[in-house]
Amino acid sequence: MRKLEEIGRKERIRVGILGATGSVGQRFVTLLAEHPWFEITALTASDRSAGKRYSEATTWVQASPLPTRIAEMTLLPSAPPLDCPLVFSALDAAVAGEVEEAFARAGHLVVSNAGSHRMDPEVPLLVPEVNPDHLELARKQRFGSGAIVTNPNCSTIGVVLALKPLLDAFGLSRVHVVTMQAISGAGFPGVSSFEIVDNVIPYIQGEEEKIERESRKILGSLHNRRVKEAELAVSAQCNRVPVLDGHTACISVGLQRAAQPAQLQEAWERFSSLPQELALPTAPAKPVHYLHDEKAPQPRLHRELERGMAVAIGRLRPCSLLDFKFVALSHNTIRGAAGGALLAAELAVAKGLLDEVEARSGATA
Amino acid sequence: MRKLEEIGRKERIRVGILGATGSVGQRFVTLLAEHPWFEITALTASDRSAGKRYSEATTWVQASPLPTRIAEMTLLPSAPPLDCPLVFSALDAAVAGEVEEAFARAGHLVVSNAGSHRMDPEVPLLVPEVNPDHLELARKQRFGSGAIVTNPNCSTIGVVLALKPLLDAFGLSRVHVVTMQAISGAGFPGVSSFEIVDNVIPYIQGEEEKIERESRKILGSLHNRRVKEAELAVSAQCNRVPVLDGHTACISVGLQRAAQPAQLQEAWERFSSLPQELALPTAPAKPVHYLHDEKAPQPRLHRELERGMAVAIGRLRPCSLLDFKFVALSHNTIRGAAGGALLAAELAVAKGLLDEVEARSGATA
Amino acid sequence: MRKLEEIGRKERIRVGILGATGSVGQRFVTLLAEHPWFEITALTASDRSAGKRYSEATTWVQASPLPTRIAEMTLLPSAPPLDCPLVFSALDAAVAGEVEEAFARAGHLVVSNAGSHRMDPEVPLLVPEVNPDHLELARKQRFGSGAIVTNPNCSTIGVVLALKPLLDAFGLSRVHVVTMQAISGAGFPGVSSFEIVDNVIPYIQGEEEKIERESRKILGSLHNRRVKEAELAVSAQCNRVPVLDGHTACISVGLQRAAQPAQLQEAWERFSSLPQELALPTAPAKPVHYLHDEKAPQPRLHRELERGMAVAIGRLRPCSLLDFKFVALSHNTIRGAAGGALLAAELAVAKGLLDEVEARSGATA
Amino acid sequence: MRKLEEIGRKERIRVGILGATGSVGQRFVTLLAEHPWFEITALTASDRSAGKRYSEATTWVQASPLPTRIAEMTLLPSAPPLDCPLVFSALDAAVAGEVEEAFARAGHLVVSNAGSHRMDPEVPLLVPEVNPDHLELARKQRFGSGAIVTNPNCSTIGVVLALKPLLDAFGLSRVHVVTMQAISGAGFPGVSSFEIVDNVIPYIQGEEEKIERESRKILGSLHNRRVKEAELAVSAQCNRVPVLDGHTACISVGLQRAAQPAQLQEAWERFSSLPQELALPTAPAKPVHYLHDEKAPQPRLHRELERGMAVAIGRLRPCSLLDFKFVALSHNTIRGAAGGALLAAELAVAKGLLDEVEARSGATA
Repeated sequence: MRKLEEIGRKERIRVGILGATGSVGQRFVTLLAEHPWFEITALTASDRSAGKRYSEATTWVQASPLPTRIAEMTLLPSAPPLDCPLVFSALDAAVAGEVEEAFARAGHLVVSNAGSHRMDPEVPLLVPEVNPDHLELARKQRFGSGAIVTNPNCSTIGVVLALKPLLDAFGLSRVHVVTMQAISGAGFPGVSSFEIVDNVIPYIQGEEEKIERESRKILGSLHNRRVKEAELAVSAQCNRVPVLDGHTACISVGLQRAAQPAQLQEAWERFSSLPQELALPTAPAKPVHYLHDEKAPQPRLHRELERGMAVAIGRLRPCSLLDFKFVALSHNTIRGAAGGALLAAELAVAKGLLDEVEARSGATA
Repeated sequence: MRKLEEIGRKERIRVGILGATGSVGQRFVTLLAEHPWFEITALTASDRSAGKRYSEATTWVQASPLPTRIAEMTLLPSAPPLDCPLVFSALDAAVAGEVEEAFARAGHLVVSNAGSHRMDPEVPLLVPEVNPDHLELARKQRFGSGAIVTNPNCSTIGVVLALKPLLDAFGLSRVHVVTMQAISGAGFPGVSSFEIVDNVIPYIQGEEEKIERESRKILGSLHNRRVKEAELAVSAQCNRVPVLDGHTACISVGLQRAAQPAQLQEAWERFSSLPQELALPTAPAKPVHYLHDEKAPQPRLHRELERGMAVAIGRLRPCSLLDFKFVALSHNTIRGAAGGALLAAELAVAKGLLDEVEARSGATA
Repeated sequence: MRKLEEIGRKERIRVGILGATGSVGQRFVTLLAEHPWFEITALTASDRSAGKRYSEATTWVQASPLPTRIAEMTLLPSAPPLDCPLVFSALDAAVAGEVEEAFARAGHLVVSNAGSHRMDPEVPLLVPEVNPDHLELARKQRFGSGAIVTNPNCSTIGVVLALKPLLDAFGLSRVHVVTMQAISGAGFPGVSSFEIVDNVIPYIQGEEEKIERESRKILGSLHNRRVKEAELAVSAQCNRVPVLDGHTACISVGLQRAAQPAQLQEAWERFSSLPQELALPTAPAKPVHYLHDEKAPQPRLHRELERGMAVAIGRLRPCSLLDFKFVALSHNTIRGAAGGALLAAELAVAKGLLDEVEARSGATA
Repeated sequence: MRKLEEIGRKERIRVGILGATGSVGQRFVTLLAEHPWFEITALTASDRSAGKRYSEATTWVQASPLPTRIAEMTLLPSAPPLDCPLVFSALDAAVAGEVEEAFARAGHLVVSNAGSHRMDPEVPLLVPEVNPDHLELARKQRFGSGAIVTNPNCSTIGVVLALKPLLDAFGLSRVHVVTMQAISGAGFPGVSSFEIVDNVIPYIQGEEEKIERESRKILGSLHNRRVKEAELAVSAQCNRVPVLDGHTACISVGLQRAAQPAQLQEAWERFSSLPQELALPTAPAKPVHYLHDEKAPQPRLHRELERGMAVAIGRLRPCSLLDFKFVALSHNTIRGAAGGALLAAELAVAKGLLDEVEARSGATA
């Protein structure tokens, strides 16, 4: 793993978490608690909670204990400036857009898990193994001295990580996705238990559109500082199931070039990208694992693969409508949210974007 | 509802249940307990249980109480003859084939929920609203004086009931199905709780092939006492989810003639068939209901629709790959198993097949 | 079942539901939809929902469909008067106290499921089979021409129905209760799915105190229009478990007179009371059932016993600390809430309390 | 943590797992895979599975991956001798008694999780923090050159760990326990999903007797190589709930000396014993944690405390029948099974019992 000195730093980089009390905020806390490059120095919340101690204002629902140092931090309002060059946004969609822009204009590098800027043509929608080159978009944005980088929707990330090796090796024309999504994807309190015990809810507001739209941007190519969306027909159906963590997707694909099943498996197993090359701290050794057990992947058994950062794929077989069908699983609050955003931030740091922002904004390292 | 006299009978028809102790057997018991035409006079089980009282040999897992009269019946071995002209088979696939043939050759009308004879060209694979004419196949079979009629796989039934109105109105070319199936579909004890709590299992042995193959036979047309399979490309992916009863299917369809969403909804809502016309006791008033709530259908809320005999459909919307996508839900152990077989038996009785079998075998009512 | 004419009425009694959009309100709707004596003519909700159609303002989470006539009723604000002599209150504890008093003072008979007036010495805390004589309290209250009758907490009802036959037959000195309560007891949205899937929450705010306090009032005796609480040491521990409906209680009791297990079973099985004698429409034929299966009672299998109005008891055995231990199960939103309140209202009608209120308030029958 | 050299060994001790394919066997595999003192060199199974590769014969249901070295080991029959001085038994109760004796007589030290020898007066029933002195029993048994040490039932362990600090500080006279137990306690496949989803089963065969009986032995005192059982009235009621791992117990206790709540909390928090003093590899830093959150402990949040080896206690409050009541939680397949047995083995090694057995049996490392 790349050390702090190798990114030209002597001390850990101070970071803040915007909207730290929700379930994604809690995941950021958990993942950042022991991070080799980053140190949490600010936590923000809505005005109602600002001023309280973090442990008072949050209902901690993570299985790992809340670190004492964090528990005792006082929540700040979600407004700039904060005494840290880098902020992670776990804000609600309702307020994220404006607040994140304000932070960027105040000279912060904002790495956001919220939906507001994902489809903004100036903002990279980053899955570090899939489109690391899109980070370039963030070097010149309209947000003053700062910058905004976004992380896709939790269900999109697993899908594009499964598709990218196929796109590179065989070309892709059509994708049909049906998801079975975990309740943690709806945040906390999120889905009522009375709605989901012994049940499936075949509807998640806005989710299908996000998968269809975001995947074309992420898999698109960069030309003259603009993303040209992938020419890909994507149809998505999204369901909520009684699973705590881990989104499962049944995917059918139409390829542009004929291939044998073994070639697809090899494409997934061999897939490696810039985060692996740079040895970023949060990068999985292998972003995609193909599992040969006929009952795999399963959320409870495989969501923790590579600390929740890898996608598990299984059940590859021919599809009588498209070419192949298979099942992909990813951890929605790690790879699909906080962990994915953390990896994006690591890439931004390793590629010098944070240095640029700090230089422009005069913030001292 | 058609009365006993209207089918030319003074007394209720004696019926037996083969394999009565399993979960489908229990559903047969529940549904037959109050049936206006049929009266349970024989229950069979494996040799291990034969001779025991029913209540001793079964772990009753139905929410309605086990009727006392049935509880005290003595289990017989699963071998002909039984003192009843009609038998329902809830036998395990492993033994069903031979045992059902033996019962047919001994002069019984066998209505089977098992898989053994479903694809037999001489045996109707019956969904009474979808292919009632296929019943003709059973008038002349190789099984001596008796006859065999089969019920499709539990996940196939909901799919073909959803497809049939579309096939009739617009033609169908392609169908993509992803199911989320209830644990009761695996019988009892079936799926271990340790496998399915907080989990999805993306594999059910043989299930995808059954949907793909059976639906083409059911939707096929009868020519010269043979079924010509429907020319329909079907691709199925099957998952087990932590739901007690009710199979949910995300379906995408390609139509042969262009249609508006309102036309599809109307086709479903207007759909009615022979069981409705004949006012069969177990027939739903409307086999298919279209629900307009954006979160419908859901297994826990809608599986009991029309006493579990109707299919609930919702979320019709355009598909960017095929023409339309929607969600269909059906009760897997009622419509998809015991209730469906019961309706098939009612059709067979109403159309005179039982009379024929009784005449041939010399069994008197 | 006692008919409408037998209570001296020609037409069904008009009733309202206060707080009709919550989960208990929905249960009232379901149970009243087909009631032989009562007809829903008014539904109220918070100011935010008043003026909307019922179907728009509520998220219907019952497995039986919302009746169309009710779906289209317009919600009224929760303020008197309403054009109905009897109102059921499913109001939140936060507002119930004042609103219910206002309705009583405006001449309504209020039958409340809320906690506000339960321990009020002038108000009966009624479990119709257990303390029907307490209804007398409601004939003279401080609330003007109307009256208030209350229903206990959902977990208390099952406990006192299990205890009453023992109290009558053997005397009771000590009761130890540990409950495993369904999520529907917390209303809707209530418990977050993320809190309860694969989990137990060993805490329900205020619940243990309610069981301990309410059971002593209910099991107390009436002297000079005051309830003398039962001299009974009760210790309760309450847990939330991932069950939809049905509260299970592990109960240990110390008796005042020695008894054999068979005598306790007989006391439960023989128990019958005024609601059974009066053949009230919602009364179970037998309020308590003793089940001999060693795995009974279980919420999913036995909560619907007698349409959810009976308590199921099982596993009676000696206790090495007190005298006996056993398990009791009751349906928390039927017997423990809406059904219990409905039965209390039926008793109040049958015993003339509604007539008195109508006479006093000049409301016409 | 005590190193290998500190127990006088240069190489890791070879160990076998009897009954390695079940769920407790899998936990042993997981916990031993990285153990500093022990190395798995033999895995056994029933005759049906012997000869197969481990990965073929087991349905791996652990969230951590099956180590490749173990996956490829060939299963041996469950009969002595094995080429390892120490064996862990995860055998079924039906066969454990005889097989374990045979292994002991063949010169092995057997540390068993099965029930067969727990109440044997010559065999220690060991919870290393609670009754480490009972290990002495194993130095002279009737089993030839070997020895047998047992681990209590999974629900007993959490209870006695919670009681021991109270017994030491205040004396104990009466204990009332109601458990809510995880499905993993029933092994694999164990509880059918159809029995436990949306349900509670208020019965676990033999479990209540085990808690009542085993806790008196464990908390008893050693006199002249015999255990004098604790004079303690214990009443237990056991329930199965839809939780994957973690047994929750609602406990009420009667003390012999008056105490304040803060003193009980302090007794738990300060509790430390021989495994902590010896720094055994699997010992938790603190065997008991008192949690002050009013909703704690919860299985999903706290079962992993100290890698599943600590008991979490919360909700201490006065009991109106006994003196105090509280909730205790422990991980049933780690502390309550494989982890507990592992700690017992570590104690046996650290105290020289394995050396003795090896000396007697002439097996040299």
